[in-house]
Amino acid sequence: MEKLEMLYEGKAKKIFKTNEANVYLVEYKDDATAFNGQKKGTIQSKGIMNNKIASIFFKLLEEKGIKTHFIKHVDDRSMLVKAVQIVPVEVIVRNIAAGTLAKRLGLEEGTVMQKTVLEFCLKSDELGDPMINNYHIAALDLASEGEMETITKEALKINDILREVLDKCGIELVDFKLEFGRTKDGEIILADEISPDTCRFWDKTTKEKMDKDRFRRDLGKVEDAYQEVLRRLEEAIPNA
Amino acid sequence: MEKLEMLYEGKAKKIFKTNEANVYLVEYKDDATAFNGQKKGTIQSKGIMNNKIASIFFKLLEEKGIKTHFIKHVDDRSMLVKAVQIVPVEVIVRNIAAGTLAKRLGLEEGTVMQKTVLEFCLKSDELGDPMINNYHIAALDLASEGEMETITKEALKINDILREVLDKCGIELVDFKLEFGRTKDGEIILADEISPDTCRFWDKTTKEKMDKDRFRRDLGKVEDAYQEVLRRLEEAIPNA
Repeated sequence: MEKLEMLYEGKAKKIFKTNEANVYLVEYKDDATAFNGQKKGTIQSKGIMNNKIASIFFKLLEEKGIKTHFIKHVDDRSMLVKAVQIVPVEVIVRNIAAGTLAKRLGLEEGTVMQKTVLEFCLKSDELGDPMINNYHIAALDLASEGEMETITKEALKINDILREVLDKCGIELVDFKLEFGRTKDGEIILADEISPDTCRFWDKTTKEKMDKDRFRRDLGKVEDAYQEVLRRLEEAIPNA
Repeated sequence: MEKLEMLYEGKAKKIFKTNEANVYLVEYKDDATAFNGQKKGTIQSKGIMNNKIASIFFKLLEEKGIKTHFIKHVDDRSMLVKAVQIVPVEVIVRNIAAGTLAKRLGLEEGTVMQKTVLEFCLKSDELGDPMINNYHIAALDLASEGEMETITKEALKINDILREVLDKCGIELVDFKLEFGRTKDGEIILADEISPDTCRFWDKTTKEKMDKDRFRRDLGKVEDAYQEVLRRLEEAIPNA
């Protein structure tokens, strides 16, 4: 597999073409940003850890019947994925109130939601990823009704699968962000990443934060938290 | 009908108990506020005009099969309504991009939406009426799934009815806000008001604003605009 020209550089990843049709190489960076890019920094070895963590999650989800863009973990910072066109709708799944949800709705951080909450945001750094709903998505033609049905169903299934494995790791899945993509054949599959950059993980017992909030809120021991998530996942899933 | 103690004073209306069970008296004020109460002022005779305009709209909607809280226009500033418990979800119906929608999604004001957009906001001055979706509504138990189905269906029907009559008045219905209430019997009916305070009305030809945006944006001739909406409605609906 040859790494060819870079197609896109995001805040935490670079995407490269490869010599294989419809296969991209994703390279995970150590760069960390928060508050829509207003806060910038580096988390040592984050790219290596997130590449491993995301690989574990994607592999697990595939085994449980979720279609993802993941092909395989290649080396420390790279994985191969199926080429997709990203649906410009970020999906946020929330089990416990934290972050913007807690603030916007006046809920105490840590309030368990009576029912899982899905939120959709327009993927736009320029506009600050504003919250939208299915009517905006239809009016702006961001995704078809059928695509949104698939995305909704898959997001809720993914939540169930992740919560189950994380529970074995002594971790609460507070909330997380997903992005989906369309393959050449128009199939909707999970894309982007699943990692402490895109999820809120709390230790089940101590409620200690084990995710990017440690960076966002200057809580220290950021690397240790990511490392600990990886360690627990590798322990819970022996042949990960 | 006797007007008894005041139950509630809002930004534009006062609600009084009456000597009849389950009947309230609504008194429309001239007070105008914008930007969640940050801007305050008075629109001369607004209460009288909005009371008439809302009465015309409610009567029309009732005739078209929409259940509303409206009983009758009593005098200049008052109408009688059925007592309801307000569902704490504001419903915004948008046909053309304007205001916060245009700003949030980076759309030019005046962009016609390909499909009608419904938005739901948590009715909370304290939180600035944040946008929510059906998942938040379920998780916070603000309304049942069945109630939200009724509210959604009714809001879209109301949009069709209002657009038709306003078209005859040479007015474009850009967007509007609705509130629904639960009667003692648990029935969902339209409540609050429909007026230039709660709708965006644009002259079909000149695109001139005929609503509270004239106050919000200091465009002048606020009273004239409200008066003109009333005049055109009375002309279009002879026995209004």
